[in-house]
Amino acid sequence: MQQITILIHCADQKGIIAAVTDFILKIEGNIIYIDQHVDREQNVFFMRLECELTNKNSNLVAIKNVFQIAIATSFNMSWEIYAKEQKPKMALFVSKYDHCLFDILGRYSAGELNVEIPLIISNHEDLKPIAERFGIPFFYVPFTRDNKEEGEKRQIELLQKYEITFIVLARYMQIITPKLISLYENKIINIHHSFLPGFKGAKPYHQAHERGVKIIGATAHFVTSDLDEGPIIEQDVAHVTHASTPEELIALGRDIERRVLAKAVKLYAEDRIFIVGKRTVIFN
Amino acid sequence: MQQITILIHCADQKGIIAAVTDFILKIEGNIIYIDQHVDREQNVFFMRLECELTNKNSNLVAIKNVFQIAIATSFNMSWEIYAKEQKPKMALFVSKYDHCLFDILGRYSAGELNVEIPLIISNHEDLKPIAERFGIPFFYVPFTRDNKEEGEKRQIELLQKYEITFIVLARYMQIITPKLISLYENKIINIHHSFLPGFKGAKPYHQAHERGVKIIGATAHFVTSDLDEGPIIEQDVAHVTHASTPEELIALGRDIERRVLAKAVKLYAEDRIFIVGKRTVIFN
Amino acid sequence: MQQITILIHCADQKGIIAAVTDFILKIEGNIIYIDQHVDREQNVFFMRLECELTNKNSNLVAIKNVFQIAIATSFNMSWEIYAKEQKPKMALFVSKYDHCLFDILGRYSAGELNVEIPLIISNHEDLKPIAERFGIPFFYVPFTRDNKEEGEKRQIELLQKYEITFIVLARYMQIITPKLISLYENKIINIHHSFLPGFKGAKPYHQAHERGVKIIGATAHFVTSDLDEGPIIEQDVAHVTHASTPEELIALGRDIERRVLAKAVKLYAEDRIFIVGKRTVIFN
Amino acid sequence: MQQITILIHCADQKGIIAAVTDFILKIEGNIIYIDQHVDREQNVFFMRLECELTNKNSNLVAIKNVFQIAIATSFNMSWEIYAKEQKPKMALFVSKYDHCLFDILGRYSAGELNVEIPLIISNHEDLKPIAERFGIPFFYVPFTRDNKEEGEKRQIELLQKYEITFIVLARYMQIITPKLISLYENKIINIHHSFLPGFKGAKPYHQAHERGVKIIGATAHFVTSDLDEGPIIEQDVAHVTHASTPEELIALGRDIERRVLAKAVKLYAEDRIFIVGKRTVIFN
Repeated sequence: MQQITILIHCADQKGIIAAVTDFILKIEGNIIYIDQHVDREQNVFFMRLECELTNKNSNLVAIKNVFQIAIATSFNMSWEIYAKEQKPKMALFVSKYDHCLFDILGRYSAGELNVEIPLIISNHEDLKPIAERFGIPFFYVPFTRDNKEEGEKRQIELLQKYEITFIVLARYMQIITPKLISLYENKIINIHHSFLPGFKGAKPYHQAHERGVKIIGATAHFVTSDLDEGPIIEQDVAHVTHASTPEELIALGRDIERRVLAKAVKLYAEDRIFIVGKRTVIFN
Repeated sequence: MQQITILIHCADQKGIIAAVTDFILKIEGNIIYIDQHVDREQNVFFMRLECELTNKNSNLVAIKNVFQIAIATSFNMSWEIYAKEQKPKMALFVSKYDHCLFDILGRYSAGELNVEIPLIISNHEDLKPIAERFGIPFFYVPFTRDNKEEGEKRQIELLQKYEITFIVLARYMQIITPKLISLYENKIINIHHSFLPGFKGAKPYHQAHERGVKIIGATAHFVTSDLDEGPIIEQDVAHVTHASTPEELIALGRDIERRVLAKAVKLYAEDRIFIVGKRTVIFN
Repeated sequence: MQQITILIHCADQKGIIAAVTDFILKIEGNIIYIDQHVDREQNVFFMRLECELTNKNSNLVAIKNVFQIAIATSFNMSWEIYAKEQKPKMALFVSKYDHCLFDILGRYSAGELNVEIPLIISNHEDLKPIAERFGIPFFYVPFTRDNKEEGEKRQIELLQKYEITFIVLARYMQIITPKLISLYENKIINIHHSFLPGFKGAKPYHQAHERGVKIIGATAHFVTSDLDEGPIIEQDVAHVTHASTPEELIALGRDIERRVLAKAVKLYAEDRIFIVGKRTVIFN
Repeated sequence: MQQITILIHCADQKGIIAAVTDFILKIEGNIIYIDQHVDREQNVFFMRLECELTNKNSNLVAIKNVFQIAIATSFNMSWEIYAKEQKPKMALFVSKYDHCLFDILGRYSAGELNVEIPLIISNHEDLKPIAERFGIPFFYVPFTRDNKEEGEKRQIELLQKYEITFIVLARYMQIITPKLISLYENKIINIHHSFLPGFKGAKPYHQAHERGVKIIGATAHFVTSDLDEGPIIEQDVAHVTHASTPEELIALGRDIERRVLAKAVKLYAEDRIFIVGKRTVIFN
């Protein structure tokens, strides 16, 4: 049976749930999961549904057309309908750190991530052998102060050629250009190696050590033009003590980064994330 | 504005959500929160809604009547509609341990629990001074091998006199009689001082120490005739090491017990728990 | 058998552990627990020992004298030796929030905290009834912009009269004066309702909501003249979602605050905390 | 500078710490880390030290000889002294599940594990391509009811040929023979996919689902002849809800298994684990 995921958001108003669930009924859908949220400050309604289409002859294009006409227009909705078997195409950006790359490729190979990974882009050649081990095309795209424009051009070329849906920065240590950010708005996920908003910027584990915190963390967030300020997707932490050196914090942090980034990728790949202003709404 | 909570469960079938949300629309309700779950093994549908009634003249009795006729009958639903300001009446059963009692009464006094506590029943007189401090009637009801019947009779008398909705065993160290269990079916909450199903029975912290576990826990569950086997409401854990003595595990465990029992009480008081067979469905 | 706790810190140098453990041997002590730490950046050595004195005629004053002469002088040590049964005297400062107060007094009454609480000081009269319930003297000491000097004078008078060892600010919502801070240097514990260093200052839960974080926390720290920057003793966190309103974050935060403050009080009362610069060393 | 790790255990008696630390002093060692524990029920003393040898001409064989004569004999100690750069040789046993294998090989390649992995042994050929990707010899050793003896013989041959120090069962789905267990006593680590002692045996996630637990876990333990009863090294958990199907519990469990097994391997590789009866003492 075909499964679809429906994502909706619009101004909050009466009757949305009744209208949408009635629509599902009419297209012979069986609701497997429904979740909704109302942001009362912004007065925005969010809904996510997973349905089975019990009629074998269901046609996704037709369903989308009817949904727009019968429901979306009158409620002035933004919406998406995805076939569940459709896998988004994910580009990995890396530099020299390999722990998140190994973790993602391991999970990918084990079939845990509902994505395709057509390519890896890096500003260094160090991790090329890992990409080769996993049989994924690796592109060395230098990106320095002097060749930013050329680098950006090459990145965009590759992303378009491979029809990339979203980008994951797996400890990619270079700035993403404003142009690339605007081309992939709300579609670039970064892993920051601290529990934001604490310890923004460079060397967060050293900062954490110096401040003497008892918990460290990592944060997966969307990339916006405002560094380390994009909408947060996932965070996790671990307890530490006075005995932890900065090097041990970094080692422990790798585990948190791996876990948090993998979770964020999973949430994105399963169409579970909405963005509202500076925040995310996540149906998990 | 009046707020109501609607709890529904019935055999899973098409159109329930559409019918219920349409009903809310017709009674001029504004859905604040909706959550649903389908147990696919048992084929049972569960739903919990919180609504504001925007019409000042809404009448809860009338709403219930209409709901039964218009919706519940055709779907063969089990359902409850509660006014949100209505507080369930909770009886506390205690013996000699005071940590859960202090915690619950502290939270109660601080206004954190949506309940009334009309009485405390104990098989010992030790904790009477604490009840008095908090101004709550305390009844000493001896309960030994020799006076079980009399004890049970007195317990039931008190519970009925005070119109008790549900019972919380805050480390009450006596068996609850089958009669009392059947009178308050799925309405008696116990805190077991282990991470069930590990370490059932007596002295779980000593068992945990002996086995050398690295994590201990506590479990809040409904009381059934099958000891320590009732539906689980909430569990939590803490990491421990080889250095922890049984006494230190007990001390650490008190914190987990407090936290887990308080959470279970809160979930019950806010009408968030369904029971399906040996399991709970909790909308949190 | 008498138990003592020895705390030592000094410049790191060879032979300290051998010398101290040899000393314990000579005074017929039995080491129950030993923990040590070297801060390699500052080159400071820290040690904490718990010993049983197996000789009934052991004299603590004599032991201290011998320790100074035989060990401490040559290593140029800072040190303390405490009899384990000696309870520090703790003053509670509160304003209007009652959750931490209820929690500490509940634990205190249940015998979980190795302290005496001779008095509660507040800049409001609201919580007086709670103090009375627990039989603890309550002093209303107004503290406003206009009477700071008078307030401070009265606070210090009371603290000295009751021979207070350390102060716990259980959500006390007023500034502590520089004079009081210097009189109780490294002896005033505050609970900050955020996961420092994120969200300093006022309304941290509102800040957390606005930023859309997925984890909130609380921090117990020593009070220094630099607000929210004192050495951190304990931190803990809880996961939250987009669905949490600021009010729900505050409610959830109360549980974290309670837990974190209780842990910090316990660590302090058991002489487990050293301070080195802006950080703590905690032997737990 | 050469670093060594010293592990000691013996009957608890006075003067051990003084004697050992004095010994370190005499061999011009600088103690970096010392940890000790006394099991008061069994009256056993455990100690672990990390030292730098400041004298370039230090000779490990000579140090061991002196230690035996000067210290170990009189206290009747069991002890080991390891050079820190010496890496234990670890054999991986796998069947068809690949998630733990990917995780360990990823960490190994990233240089996070202080081990050598000279070979992988499996009773199926499925995971051979992964071993090849990481350049590690893979041996297919069938192990069925009918060829147990032959299988065991081949396993032991390989382990001896490659001079294996310890064995990690990364979701190896076959019984380990008593002979292999006795040859590698306390040197075989298994990952059990439940929070032991709950849900022993097969299909623990299905058991957890059926019982309706709110937390699932995984346990790394040493393999003894008593299935799932060996000394526990590490445990961790994750919260789940009624909504989790057995399949989702399994998927979530993979993450816990990965994390817990990696931690256990790290602890073993760094010589941080003692075994006392059915329990471990872990200096972490």
